[in-house]
Amino acid sequence: MTRSVAVCLVSGGMDSAVCAAIAARDYTPAFLHCNYGQRTEQKELAAFHALADHYEAKARLVVDFQHLKIIGGTSLLSDGPPVPTGTTPGGGIPSTYVPFRNGLLLSTAAAWGEVLSAKRIFFGAVEQDSSGYPDCREEFIAAMSDAIQKGTKPDTDLKIEAPLVRLSKGAIVKRGLELSVPFHLTWSCYTGNDRACGVCESCHLRLKGFAEAGAKDPIPYVP
Amino acid sequence: MTRSVAVCLVSGGMDSAVCAAIAARDYTPAFLHCNYGQRTEQKELAAFHALADHYEAKARLVVDFQHLKIIGGTSLLSDGPPVPTGTTPGGGIPSTYVPFRNGLLLSTAAAWGEVLSAKRIFFGAVEQDSSGYPDCREEFIAAMSDAIQKGTKPDTDLKIEAPLVRLSKGAIVKRGLELSVPFHLTWSCYTGNDRACGVCESCHLRLKGFAEAGAKDPIPYVP
Repeated sequence: MTRSVAVCLVSGGMDSAVCAAIAARDYTPAFLHCNYGQRTEQKELAAFHALADHYEAKARLVVDFQHLKIIGGTSLLSDGPPVPTGTTPGGGIPSTYVPFRNGLLLSTAAAWGEVLSAKRIFFGAVEQDSSGYPDCREEFIAAMSDAIQKGTKPDTDLKIEAPLVRLSKGAIVKRGLELSVPFHLTWSCYTGNDRACGVCESCHLRLKGFAEAGAKDPIPYVP
Repeated sequence: MTRSVAVCLVSGGMDSAVCAAIAARDYTPAFLHCNYGQRTEQKELAAFHALADHYEAKARLVVDFQHLKIIGGTSLLSDGPPVPTGTTPGGGIPSTYVPFRNGLLLSTAAAWGEVLSAKRIFFGAVEQDSSGYPDCREEFIAAMSDAIQKGTKPDTDLKIEAPLVRLSKGAIVKRGLELSVPFHLTWSCYTGNDRACGVCESCHLRLKGFAEAGAKDPIPYVP
């Protein structure tokens, strides 16, 4: 029996790698990555291709949203303000939030998915144990899935799956270990150096996940 | 009193010009245009800038979605199959449909609108008297507006307005004439020549609108 195609949004980080591993069990994965002038563009792109090779994704697409750099409004951009360390005081939305980025990513996945006759878009957003970005919330994902259903052809049947959205970072690492995810190929740090900084919010959440799972993160960190 | 900002999606065609004229009555317009490798990219971009000058839009943004050319699936692309003439037999979705293009456009407008603290996105989609594209339907626009509300910051309040969605092409031309829209600056034809072809579906709908309004289209057509 021929497998259906699933578009997998793969940033190159830990969560998207676990999400792609879940997709690859049941679907033929088509790997999609987005550059948008972020500080770690080259590191993330290398991780994307390494993961695409690992999961033998024949279909892969890299999209440039350089206009997000012009639009601005985020410290993740290479010419933006500095990336903060740790979690955001008061639980607000951190300066690393990229305006409606995930809406753009999911729309691109929908466009590609419609041409590929894909049945699913796999999206590794995490709501429960995350930075509080509004475009990672389950209610946003459900609304976007509805918009994609209504804005594509009647014979297109493309749904978003976000299997990590309710998981803690520890549960995500455990799930990844069960699925033999090659965590050594992934990159989560918001800075673009050879070693992960260990102090930005993304490193903070990643390290928390490995600690909760009782496992050692295989990537190198600044001592 | 300071006016709120509205992001206006302006292709350079007749409908988007009328939509921008409606927006400019009550809001400070921010003009947004998208290139995606379509045959008429240069003609449309020139029309966009001419309209932005006319409506004195200080904020303007041109975005390149060249990946839509890679994704393909449409005859509107410069290396796609030929653009058909007239209406689509059987009322199906014509080959000029660009997969989920309007989802991408509206997501980009949401990203820019959030940074600009805009209150509205003006979108000149037409459902009632159109080519039958799924991403021009009112139910899609409502779903996308909901997704934008849920996927942006709590203090962002950005809604999509689609004032033409239920109008006939004749009613759109009449509305434009009332608002003194500079129709001579617009370009609707799917081919990229000096004169509009008069036979593609877009010309067909435009000419129908002027005929219904009892007015003469000021742009030149192939004799």
